[in-house]
Amino acid sequence: MSSSDIFLGETIGTAVLILLGGGVCAAVTLKSSKARGAGWLAITFGWGFAVMTAVYMTASLSGAHLNPAVTIGIAIKDGEWGDVPVYVAGQMLGAMIGAALVWVAYYGQFRAHLTDESIISTPHEEGMVDQKAAPAAGPVLGVFSTGPEIRNTWQNLATEIIGTVVLVLAVLTQGLNDSGKGLGVIGALITAFVVVSIGLSLGGPTGYAINPARDLGPRIVHALLPLPNKGGSDWSYAWIPVAGPLIGGAIAAGIYNIAFA
Amino acid sequence: MSSSDIFLGETIGTAVLILLGGGVCAAVTLKSSKARGAGWLAITFGWGFAVMTAVYMTASLSGAHLNPAVTIGIAIKDGEWGDVPVYVAGQMLGAMIGAALVWVAYYGQFRAHLTDESIISTPHEEGMVDQKAAPAAGPVLGVFSTGPEIRNTWQNLATEIIGTVVLVLAVLTQGLNDSGKGLGVIGALITAFVVVSIGLSLGGPTGYAINPARDLGPRIVHALLPLPNKGGSDWSYAWIPVAGPLIGGAIAAGIYNIAFA
Amino acid sequence: MSSSDIFLGETIGTAVLILLGGGVCAAVTLKSSKARGAGWLAITFGWGFAVMTAVYMTASLSGAHLNPAVTIGIAIKDGEWGDVPVYVAGQMLGAMIGAALVWVAYYGQFRAHLTDESIISTPHEEGMVDQKAAPAAGPVLGVFSTGPEIRNTWQNLATEIIGTVVLVLAVLTQGLNDSGKGLGVIGALITAFVVVSIGLSLGGPTGYAINPARDLGPRIVHALLPLPNKGGSDWSYAWIPVAGPLIGGAIAAGIYNIAFA
Amino acid sequence: MSSSDIFLGETIGTAVLILLGGGVCAAVTLKSSKARGAGWLAITFGWGFAVMTAVYMTASLSGAHLNPAVTIGIAIKDGEWGDVPVYVAGQMLGAMIGAALVWVAYYGQFRAHLTDESIISTPHEEGMVDQKAAPAAGPVLGVFSTGPEIRNTWQNLATEIIGTVVLVLAVLTQGLNDSGKGLGVIGALITAFVVVSIGLSLGGPTGYAINPARDLGPRIVHALLPLPNKGGSDWSYAWIPVAGPLIGGAIAAGIYNIAFA
Repeated sequence: MSSSDIFLGETIGTAVLILLGGGVCAAVTLKSSKARGAGWLAITFGWGFAVMTAVYMTASLSGAHLNPAVTIGIAIKDGEWGDVPVYVAGQMLGAMIGAALVWVAYYGQFRAHLTDESIISTPHEEGMVDQKAAPAAGPVLGVFSTGPEIRNTWQNLATEIIGTVVLVLAVLTQGLNDSGKGLGVIGALITAFVVVSIGLSLGGPTGYAINPARDLGPRIVHALLPLPNKGGSDWSYAWIPVAGPLIGGAIAAGIYNIAFA
Repeated sequence: MSSSDIFLGETIGTAVLILLGGGVCAAVTLKSSKARGAGWLAITFGWGFAVMTAVYMTASLSGAHLNPAVTIGIAIKDGEWGDVPVYVAGQMLGAMIGAALVWVAYYGQFRAHLTDESIISTPHEEGMVDQKAAPAAGPVLGVFSTGPEIRNTWQNLATEIIGTVVLVLAVLTQGLNDSGKGLGVIGALITAFVVVSIGLSLGGPTGYAINPARDLGPRIVHALLPLPNKGGSDWSYAWIPVAGPLIGGAIAAGIYNIAFA
Repeated sequence: MSSSDIFLGETIGTAVLILLGGGVCAAVTLKSSKARGAGWLAITFGWGFAVMTAVYMTASLSGAHLNPAVTIGIAIKDGEWGDVPVYVAGQMLGAMIGAALVWVAYYGQFRAHLTDESIISTPHEEGMVDQKAAPAAGPVLGVFSTGPEIRNTWQNLATEIIGTVVLVLAVLTQGLNDSGKGLGVIGALITAFVVVSIGLSLGGPTGYAINPARDLGPRIVHALLPLPNKGGSDWSYAWIPVAGPLIGGAIAAGIYNIAFA
Repeated sequence: MSSSDIFLGETIGTAVLILLGGGVCAAVTLKSSKARGAGWLAITFGWGFAVMTAVYMTASLSGAHLNPAVTIGIAIKDGEWGDVPVYVAGQMLGAMIGAALVWVAYYGQFRAHLTDESIISTPHEEGMVDQKAAPAAGPVLGVFSTGPEIRNTWQNLATEIIGTVVLVLAVLTQGLNDSGKGLGVIGALITAFVVVSIGLSLGGPTGYAINPARDLGPRIVHALLPLPNKGGSDWSYAWIPVAGPLIGGAIAAGIYNIAFA
């Protein structure tokens, strides 16, 4: 694959991923959305099908990593690091484009939500979970990035590592079942349901970033967007959904090389 | 494919699509339906499986576009416009047949709903969303056609454009993964989940028409049917779910030709 | 396929279908079930996956019709009626075995439900829908057989016909997409989601029997089982979920022969 | 397959299965989890996709039994018992590792849950079901192991037997549809939905262990973990989710050998 195809594929793919993934968080959270209160199942299936759609669309261009943790895992497994910067650059740019598109698609809903006194005067308290709404440190940060229910550096990091090990190991072992064809049609579907699975099973404590670009790109967009009363971007937490998934991707590659190669 | 197969396939396919898609809106909305209040997940999976069933049934006859935005996108991509009128004619006829069949299947539920004083005297106010029921400008228009939660021409148009770009780009890129076999068995399944994804993630503001025939055909049937207290057909909004998806289909074809061809 | 394989396949398959399909109705309805109140999505996915499991298991033995309406539709399409009695006999026997197994699996739940004064003294009134519980004419008939929310012979019949046309047409057109391999692995999955679709979209008025054996077999078992306070078996309605699906299967075969053959 | 590949595959696979399966129970049950109260659909899809992820990952190493009842069923069908001890050892070790990982991922949630007076002072009473929370004999045993809503040895055993017969028969018949390729990509997906189906339809009375390792391994970990106020491990019930599935696996192999071989 050429560098330009990789960059294009990762940019388009990650933009679609975050448009649909951030979109479902907006849909379930924001005032005056028809899907408001649709709950955790909607969020987890929404993210899963977001991955499926994006992977399916761009697999022929770049192989559809769409996640630096996947890129790191594949680089360690194959011992080839040359394309890693192109992959990650496309993923970060795509994630920011996707987050901006969520803002366009939900423009009126963001405005209605952020000018509603009853909403902005009720800060989310950690440990007080309402499963009907995606949690947020500020009133809408949860549409863009993840945050923990209980703030505990080591547990939060461990949960992100464990979730990413499952994701990347599932991606790496696809070649063993798909006769080497990589992420094809069925691969996109399986990967979608693996992501739903991680969301349902391991998303409870931190909201399952399991992808540094998915969390950091939209967090930057949250910091830049001119949203009234948007609250802080919670930069003190921002390193955990970056470091955790990268560590998890590396561990998954290690497990793969020991047990499956 | 012959013109008669195309017309037949698109008519049957779009009729099944709207029967099942309008059907789930009726099921979740109308009084005395066992599914009343089943929520947004039911609606989004209902529309997704409606697409799957219709595509699967008619792919061998017409290629199963079932959507003028898909037809336009494929015409731009391939540079062939000869069959477009036949496709669109079948889609519009099918959509009207499907909407009429929803009325037959839910005949008693429509009557019960529209003669219940507590329902017809409570007009749906925009911005006041209850996710348990599909929204409607009149008491039952939401069973037939889409409407925005917040009426904002540019945002509503943008949301429909963005949603349709995702849909049509996913359809156009199928050939890249399916070794050119087009919309086969797995293609129908992937397309179904792409539609669920768009519903979950981008359906919140406008109810995701993403298909001019899906919105306009049933709206005409709503205007014609002898339903008591049915309310207006909201013609002032009707151009948006026609224009937005057509623009989105064209943009998707442009992206395809630039990035994927 | 030999007659004995057909009979065995249809008996085992329909038993599994009704065990899992009736099972989800019991799970969502009965007192002291962990799934009580899980709602319409649980019921529709439960029936869909029941079909998938049963079709997948028995496709190699009998082709997995598991439904007299499918058998009639295939007989009309192919013009071969010789095996029809064996198919239907296996389906009826299997449906009764499956319903009896539901009773075994939920033995304590049936007893707890039917000896709870607050449940048995509240007859289900038509038109008063609570989507959280499967409806029943008697307190538990809904675990075995279908019943209409609004009793209207012509509408109820029409709804069952329309639903079955969609099901049988989807089954008959599988050969066009599956290169003639019939109901294989993917076919079982597609059929499952078609059944979920019909449930979500057309199940609201009558509870979607769309299969004479699925309704009549368990109704006979309901009449025979020694359940206290079980209420009547609603025999006056019993002919509609038999006649409607048979008519629907025949219409689907007619549409197939005209439009698809 | 070599013994070491079998042991490795079953250990990794069952660890992933229990991490994701126990994880969804933790997510839906424990205080301060974002998924708290997400309900029975979340639990059943969570377990189904847990099976899919684990089977898909490890099918190439060990065939991905991940369940002593499946191992017994295959041994009886094939008449080969040599690898059974290796399979079961890997499954038990993996199940314990998985349960320990759930504790790590939900460390803070366990602590918050078990130090909340209003939770630990309300013992779960059998027969009083709240579908929003996974049931537990002690406050958190339900995250690890199954328990009956109504304690009735013969019914509980029968329900576990019936559920396991469906599971193992579905696994054994896969070879008939998959041209002998065993548990491949699609097989993992079908198996996932079979498990969702058993959960939705037969999980109501006992919580569907249908796998001795899935229940016994985590129960041992529950007994060992230093959790405050964790309650008892309900050892008097522990033999049923071991014996029932083993009997069910044997019966399924018998049915297979009589009807399908």
